[in-house]
Amino acid sequence: MKHSVPVVPGMRAAGVHCGIKDADLDLALLVSDTPASVAGVFTRSTVVGAPVSLCRERVRRGTARAIAINSGISNVAMGKRGLRDAVNMAAAAARAVGVAEEDVLVASTGVIGEPLPMRKIRAGVAQAAAALVPQGLPAAARAIMTTDTVPKLAQRVVRIGRREVTLAGIAKGAGMIEPDMATMLSFLLSDVAATPAFLRRTLREVADRTYNRLTIDGEGSTSDTVLLLANGVAGHAPLRGPGSPGAARFRDALGDLATQLVRALARDGEGATKLITVRVRGARSHREAQAAARRIANSVLVKTAIFGGDANWGRILQTLGAGRTALRLERTRVTLAGVTVFGNGVSAGPAARRRAAKRLQAAEVDIEVALGAGRGAAELWTCDLTTDYVRINAEYTT
Amino acid sequence: MKHSVPVVPGMRAAGVHCGIKDADLDLALLVSDTPASVAGVFTRSTVVGAPVSLCRERVRRGTARAIAINSGISNVAMGKRGLRDAVNMAAAAARAVGVAEEDVLVASTGVIGEPLPMRKIRAGVAQAAAALVPQGLPAAARAIMTTDTVPKLAQRVVRIGRREVTLAGIAKGAGMIEPDMATMLSFLLSDVAATPAFLRRTLREVADRTYNRLTIDGEGSTSDTVLLLANGVAGHAPLRGPGSPGAARFRDALGDLATQLVRALARDGEGATKLITVRVRGARSHREAQAAARRIANSVLVKTAIFGGDANWGRILQTLGAGRTALRLERTRVTLAGVTVFGNGVSAGPAARRRAAKRLQAAEVDIEVALGAGRGAAELWTCDLTTDYVRINAEYTT
Repeated sequence: MKHSVPVVPGMRAAGVHCGIKDADLDLALLVSDTPASVAGVFTRSTVVGAPVSLCRERVRRGTARAIAINSGISNVAMGKRGLRDAVNMAAAAARAVGVAEEDVLVASTGVIGEPLPMRKIRAGVAQAAAALVPQGLPAAARAIMTTDTVPKLAQRVVRIGRREVTLAGIAKGAGMIEPDMATMLSFLLSDVAATPAFLRRTLREVADRTYNRLTIDGEGSTSDTVLLLANGVAGHAPLRGPGSPGAARFRDALGDLATQLVRALARDGEGATKLITVRVRGARSHREAQAAARRIANSVLVKTAIFGGDANWGRILQTLGAGRTALRLERTRVTLAGVTVFGNGVSAGPAARRRAAKRLQAAEVDIEVALGAGRGAAELWTCDLTTDYVRINAEYTT
Repeated sequence: MKHSVPVVPGMRAAGVHCGIKDADLDLALLVSDTPASVAGVFTRSTVVGAPVSLCRERVRRGTARAIAINSGISNVAMGKRGLRDAVNMAAAAARAVGVAEEDVLVASTGVIGEPLPMRKIRAGVAQAAAALVPQGLPAAARAIMTTDTVPKLAQRVVRIGRREVTLAGIAKGAGMIEPDMATMLSFLLSDVAATPAFLRRTLREVADRTYNRLTIDGEGSTSDTVLLLANGVAGHAPLRGPGSPGAARFRDALGDLATQLVRALARDGEGATKLITVRVRGARSHREAQAAARRIANSVLVKTAIFGGDANWGRILQTLGAGRTALRLERTRVTLAGVTVFGNGVSAGPAARRRAAKRLQAAEVDIEVALGAGRGAAELWTCDLTTDYVRINAEYTT
């Protein structure tokens, strides 16, 4: 990740310890000094946490000023109390920052089945509001962590017209552990000038090829949330549609930012030792390619093989077959860490397999499958499945 | 499993060592002394092994006399050579036993990417033919094992009219390990008198609620095969349809036999410490119930929690939500090992969770989810996901 501290003009952030966790930072606050356009993408789970319900509704208004996030305790399956707590958490942040209640968004992540400790949360947002600084993103990134081993933080700068536009973002863990229901959260800030409609479309597009291309264990969460705040402080003509000057550049920069965060999430998957990029091409459609890539990325057999450094093309073909991918083996090629181990319907032989196995020792490895049936292509990120993953997830107790 | 040796009148079996594996039995032969009705169900993978292609075609004829099975090397992704080898393996068995070539079925299980060692196979079937005995099923059960730790063998006796009808079966491992592509194989023998059409319908019905309700790691294989041979030696009026006297009793006995084998497979899943039965009811349809049960049974988070003895209802709700199961939490109940841990939209509290956790130490545990939305119900078997599973599957090398 970037080493210089990301600063977005007109944005301040803080991360504090309010006592939900024993010692670590557990409450983050992100604030725009002026009203900002906002967009969000959320979990597609049929069960969602109260913060997601609140955000979905408020994001529709198109503008926001602040986001308050706590870690340690989630706010899921708590019925009416959960919704009330989410509203009260936003209200407390609104008071502390001095903005309207409905301009505040919230997110919570951590164990479920316990109510939010509202006294601590109220004290926490007040403390965080007092600590807000332009250089506060690293602390905020730390305060939203649950089982992450490192904070995730990224920054991009792009020129739009004569102005320099900054984008910065933080994200937290996509593995599912201590949390009962863990969560992928990511918050993106920019001084770009853009309409809410433009932000919404652009974030959706970018999320589809970044956040939605990450799979750690095939499990989505009840609270997955990505929010983008843009305050327009850069001062160029607002981006309104794909034809606006600079729109494509902003979209690409947002894509790069999200990609960097997502790859960091995959690399830090629970117990992971390797970042795996799965690429499928030659499918009859993009949709088929994506289903095939997802099948590979979620196969426990493939993921344990990669953990073991085993160039096991058989497991890849088998999981594709079982997933009903149309396969003509004589046209199929499997390439592992750059070495083709299966092609033209047959194994490339033990020497190729050994060569691939050696390269699979790297911290970043590619699984590439060419189906030879069409032009459909897809790319996904995941990580290996390790004994540590099982240990972490088995040894969690209430 | 049953301790007395199952014997089916008019059927003989053998299991021998022909040198594919280093020391273990690796070739099985099952023979009916007279022409038998036959039915089969096979993998739905889009990639299938050559033996499956051969069996699918020959089973259509409705009769068969023998099944030859080898373990150690599979016969998958070997192109035309694979098909030729499957045909030649059947021909060799036909010669050795003295039956027509097209009356012989074959199956292979083991590592893929290597050709069948046909010299060893030919010698093996001759050796097995010479060893055929009515009491040969235990040896055959042993000879089809790959990563199984115990042979699977079951027997049932049922009365049809005045005749005693015997059913016996063997099965092998549903985990996916040494094999690159491992396989669930099961072979069922009976002296029942029945038409091929009756057998086909009955086996399909039974398989749908037994073999197709087993999931170890969400991976189907390219070679999954269940074959049923029935030679009519019992001498009653042949079963022709659901209205034939004794038809229901036979179907139930076949169901019991298959259930016993399938539970044994689940219990012996790779690295497994627990047999898990997943029951979902109250779904809007059976199909929805089955999708929900499958979602739970294949969730690595749920399976690692059960391994760890953690009564983690959160992970169950989360995986259902992510799988798009329609959930109304206030009507949903989650019962683990007989203890309700979530009901009426809220946690049943830490004491219930501790009580459930204690009971989850048992070798057989139930996960029950009541959705309160309708009458759809489903049951599935699986096993826990353990550090040993990962170790076994990661440490396999070529």
